[in-house]
Amino acid sequence: MNTNSSNIMALAPNASNKRETVCIFGTGDFGRALGHKMIQCGYPVVYGSRSTHISNLIPKDAEVMSHTEAAQKAAIIIIAIQRQHYNFLTPLAEILHGKVVVDISNNLKLNQYPESNAEYLAQLLPGARVVKAFNTVSAWALQSGTLDASRQVFVCGDDMEAKQMVMNIVRALGLTPLDRGSLLAAQEIENYPLQLFPMWKFPFFLSLGLTAFFFFYCLALDVIYTYVYENKNFSFFIAITIPNRICPVMALILLGLVYLPGVLAAIIQLYRGTKYRRFPDWLDKWMLCRKQLGLIALAFASLHAVFTLVSPIRSFVRWRTSKAIISQALNNKTEPLDTTNAWLSDSYLALGILGFFFFVLVGITSLPSVSNSVNWREFRFVQSKLGYVTLILCTAHTLVYGGKWFLSPSAYRWYLPNIYMLSLIVPCAVLVVKFVLIFPCVDKPLTQIRQGWERNPKYSE
Amino acid sequence: MNTNSSNIMALAPNASNKRETVCIFGTGDFGRALGHKMIQCGYPVVYGSRSTHISNLIPKDAEVMSHTEAAQKAAIIIIAIQRQHYNFLTPLAEILHGKVVVDISNNLKLNQYPESNAEYLAQLLPGARVVKAFNTVSAWALQSGTLDASRQVFVCGDDMEAKQMVMNIVRALGLTPLDRGSLLAAQEIENYPLQLFPMWKFPFFLSLGLTAFFFFYCLALDVIYTYVYENKNFSFFIAITIPNRICPVMALILLGLVYLPGVLAAIIQLYRGTKYRRFPDWLDKWMLCRKQLGLIALAFASLHAVFTLVSPIRSFVRWRTSKAIISQALNNKTEPLDTTNAWLSDSYLALGILGFFFFVLVGITSLPSVSNSVNWREFRFVQSKLGYVTLILCTAHTLVYGGKWFLSPSAYRWYLPNIYMLSLIVPCAVLVVKFVLIFPCVDKPLTQIRQGWERNPKYSE
Amino acid sequence: MNTNSSNIMALAPNASNKRETVCIFGTGDFGRALGHKMIQCGYPVVYGSRSTHISNLIPKDAEVMSHTEAAQKAAIIIIAIQRQHYNFLTPLAEILHGKVVVDISNNLKLNQYPESNAEYLAQLLPGARVVKAFNTVSAWALQSGTLDASRQVFVCGDDMEAKQMVMNIVRALGLTPLDRGSLLAAQEIENYPLQLFPMWKFPFFLSLGLTAFFFFYCLALDVIYTYVYENKNFSFFIAITIPNRICPVMALILLGLVYLPGVLAAIIQLYRGTKYRRFPDWLDKWMLCRKQLGLIALAFASLHAVFTLVSPIRSFVRWRTSKAIISQALNNKTEPLDTTNAWLSDSYLALGILGFFFFVLVGITSLPSVSNSVNWREFRFVQSKLGYVTLILCTAHTLVYGGKWFLSPSAYRWYLPNIYMLSLIVPCAVLVVKFVLIFPCVDKPLTQIRQGWERNPKYSE
Repeated sequence: MNTNSSNIMALAPNASNKRETVCIFGTGDFGRALGHKMIQCGYPVVYGSRSTHISNLIPKDAEVMSHTEAAQKAAIIIIAIQRQHYNFLTPLAEILHGKVVVDISNNLKLNQYPESNAEYLAQLLPGARVVKAFNTVSAWALQSGTLDASRQVFVCGDDMEAKQMVMNIVRALGLTPLDRGSLLAAQEIENYPLQLFPMWKFPFFLSLGLTAFFFFYCLALDVIYTYVYENKNFSFFIAITIPNRICPVMALILLGLVYLPGVLAAIIQLYRGTKYRRFPDWLDKWMLCRKQLGLIALAFASLHAVFTLVSPIRSFVRWRTSKAIISQALNNKTEPLDTTNAWLSDSYLALGILGFFFFVLVGITSLPSVSNSVNWREFRFVQSKLGYVTLILCTAHTLVYGGKWFLSPSAYRWYLPNIYMLSLIVPCAVLVVKFVLIFPCVDKPLTQIRQGWERNPKYSE
Repeated sequence: MNTNSSNIMALAPNASNKRETVCIFGTGDFGRALGHKMIQCGYPVVYGSRSTHISNLIPKDAEVMSHTEAAQKAAIIIIAIQRQHYNFLTPLAEILHGKVVVDISNNLKLNQYPESNAEYLAQLLPGARVVKAFNTVSAWALQSGTLDASRQVFVCGDDMEAKQMVMNIVRALGLTPLDRGSLLAAQEIENYPLQLFPMWKFPFFLSLGLTAFFFFYCLALDVIYTYVYENKNFSFFIAITIPNRICPVMALILLGLVYLPGVLAAIIQLYRGTKYRRFPDWLDKWMLCRKQLGLIALAFASLHAVFTLVSPIRSFVRWRTSKAIISQALNNKTEPLDTTNAWLSDSYLALGILGFFFFVLVGITSLPSVSNSVNWREFRFVQSKLGYVTLILCTAHTLVYGGKWFLSPSAYRWYLPNIYMLSLIVPCAVLVVKFVLIFPCVDKPLTQIRQGWERNPKYSE
Repeated sequence: MNTNSSNIMALAPNASNKRETVCIFGTGDFGRALGHKMIQCGYPVVYGSRSTHISNLIPKDAEVMSHTEAAQKAAIIIIAIQRQHYNFLTPLAEILHGKVVVDISNNLKLNQYPESNAEYLAQLLPGARVVKAFNTVSAWALQSGTLDASRQVFVCGDDMEAKQMVMNIVRALGLTPLDRGSLLAAQEIENYPLQLFPMWKFPFFLSLGLTAFFFFYCLALDVIYTYVYENKNFSFFIAITIPNRICPVMALILLGLVYLPGVLAAIIQLYRGTKYRRFPDWLDKWMLCRKQLGLIALAFASLHAVFTLVSPIRSFVRWRTSKAIISQALNNKTEPLDTTNAWLSDSYLALGILGFFFFVLVGITSLPSVSNSVNWREFRFVQSKLGYVTLILCTAHTLVYGGKWFLSPSAYRWYLPNIYMLSLIVPCAVLVVKFVLIFPCVDKPLTQIRQGWERNPKYSE
């Protein structure tokens, strides 16, 4: 709200011309968009261009002149040209000496060049105070004023004062500068806008694959089997019944996969007797995407909750209920209350609700602003302690739900187990191993190892 | 948690007197509250006042002296008086030369004066290093120590070192300083505390108006019509049935209105053949409040979800269900399962659940801390791609829900369509136009225009 | 996502050796972990140690030498030894003169020493530029690269340039530095990692106690009474029925307790005629944990919502429903619709839904990132105005739900009231007093007092 309103004000040209002149090299799309925005915010703008004839597209309040003239008019020069053409700047090195030169370029792919564009620019212009900035902002967003997305502008550079000058411009444009340190950070900043949820890729495709597998598994057992052997058309199970079988199974498996690498790491450390050797690569990568796995598991759990709550409204469920009641009424009898059944039904629902409640709690602490406001000890408490409580409750929920069918042959269609039985493998394994790891005779050496003790110093790097 | 706990510590007077003396001009409410807090945090405080007799209200550890004497005792002078009285500072200009002078004043209305109070102060005291700070904090909150609200203190000023000194005080008081750049930002900072959700006003009143209209529309069709023609008292529909008709309709219309301006902007750009002309003002403003429209739509969608899930518990629904079952039982027959009906019921529920799920996902990425941790590409992916998926799913949900009644005359009471039919107009229009815009023959020139190409350069400014 | 991906890159050793050498005193666990991480990020690292024989555990790219030699090689010296051994640094004071000395130590309990470790270090090394940093990061997290928790590193120090150098290292390690001001903040920074939700303790144990009390109260009335007098085994009520009685009661009581201290504070101020006297200690502490009380109340309210929505799926409820329908069918009659009952049922559900909706809204604005983006006026509007709307709606929800039973003797088993009657005491009291406080004749003097006016100046400190 704050940010949006400041944006509105930024749209109204600030009449005062108290701001220092800014020079922009290059009249491409981004150079023009930035110039427009700067003029709106009260900055006098001069463009440096090879052809000094005034282009229609350039903001009408800006001057266009040769690179040399333009650079002399301003203390800050923004380089809005592509890296391939940077070498034309070499003859200007002397004029740019001591000036703040802002590199705003982006690449087309990750780590395209050995060094970042900003570092390359700094090599070309040894006397200039190079600052990397603005590359994370979109020209279209600058132009249209609809900066709904992140207003953060990463800034880095070796000269503190130059960085401050650029950060002041960033703030004046209604954006939030974020100091990322020295120019060595430029590579990372240049890679940043090219990413599309890199940490989510593996968890996403894993979930997609597992979901597809379970979908066809359920389709075979619930729709095709029923059609073949009982000649009933339950094809509409595809809409809600089957999704509501897959969601809890996926949630439980993914939640198990969140805690499995921690358990594996503990076993590896106990076996090696040291924490000073790197884990295998796959384990490292797995540990880094636990948060994403957990959030996808939470999404499946939420869908399961809504699919379950919606069931009394379903046409099929209402038909089944009324059929059962009518048949009782026609037989002139009322079934008595089955207390065992009531206990089972209520306790698996209660376990599920509590498990989901703790799951949501853990999910909320994953929000960046919440996890930033807790310390390491508190974060570990929530993510580890409460996370295991969630896992225990959800596993118990599934066990109570399906327990009675484990030994019943009718639950095995085509000799295949129901998917909720499959879903129990990972979480039960994690819980059993974790239970063993809690025993003092195992926990004590593990704690020592994690505090830096080594059983067998020859293993260390 | 962090912040609150730091607050507790700040309550305990810090015995050490290592902090530099701070001078406060003015013994009004805010000056006293600030002085109290600073003394608690270990700062020696002197007050500059016209009448040097010691007032009861002034913190007892503070000294009160004349303005001149007080200013000489400290490097930082906080001006806790109103702008109208600033001119009394003119004779003190010499003493305040080189000192850090902090302007903490607020105005009574937005843009009350041509220049900000801090800039006016800087004009009056040319030699002073003026810093704007503290105006966003409430005296009452400072006094009572219950700073639950934002602990952010916007700071701006032209002198870097002076700003750092003030930011250190802000931090010592348990607050978070936010550097907003040069003194030119003071106007914005002074306007900030006067706002009351400025971006929410239009979306809020639009929603209120539409909701009122649909309420009376439904009241007429569902309650009055039934009472007049069928002589049934369904007045209790006002509590849940009618709200649960209005909420989905409002959610769908508002969601459509979120994506309509983007589509309109594309049409305007295609027609003009350039992106370098400003959109009409209403479109600019509309685009800036899309986030708010979307969040209100999400609120309506959430209410719709809860109202729907609660329906099996409603006394009326239970009565209707049991009536239907009893009449079947008394007629001694059981209706067979209607597979088409089961398909329709299950698929509109599934579409609704999925639509709501994606809607919540998009809503979560609107949280400031989440949208700050994604880059522009990721944000566009979520807000645009996932947003359109949401729109498609929700529109399909409504179409499947009501599709069978479109051609049935009984759905048109008093020849008026049901409101869910009205709700489909905007989203369907958006989806049709968007579908056209995706065609390569339309998409290609649009992409070129958005990259800065112009069909007809004479149009440019 | 950003943060995680930067972490991945940080794992890949940065080949360039452009970074300045860093010296680490001490080869303990944290010193080694920090050294490992720094080498990964391209920093040359030298260790200063008493025994210069190369330990296996030290990262193999690091050099180990005597303290004197190591300190001479670097401008930044990180002290990774415990406070008890700091005095060995005294002879090195001359070599460390002008160097940036980073204190990363933590204590074992809150406020263990009169002055912070960093201030103690600064006393020992008067010429060194002491900076406090890194103490909030866990060695294990640094080592394993799984920095899921807060990446914030609090930094404080009196030398601006030294602080900037340390902050650059923090950034290069993929962490986020947070400037907390001068070295006086070190005490707070050292206390920070030792906390475990300090503000949540009182609200948590209060809720636990009340929940336990209400649980046994309900157990007696709902399970034991029924078993004794009606000989029915309703033990399964423990799973869902009783929790769903306790949750709304707890939510309402805690919500009342959030607004009670504000009302008490107003009464105290009116009585005293001044705002310049401190509230009693218990009231101060109570006011500081209102946010936590409110969030726990929201958690109970959410559980109540889910427990309620789940009820139609419960085996017991389905049995009860079908029993009622069958008995009607067997008696060959259909009960007509009871409009009063429909009104009551629908309106208490609608009031509950709306109350919960506003409650969630208020809860969302408690998220740090949301409350940071609103100003004081907006925050007060949401937390105070919307909070009271929530309280009114939730109280009305309870009154409509149970209103008809207040005067019915059958609701009083063992002459004890049902717990929802108990839950109404606090919120009704708050609402009545608040209603009185709104009257102009009470509101006007209160507003004056809060603006600094005093009825009786002799009372002031």
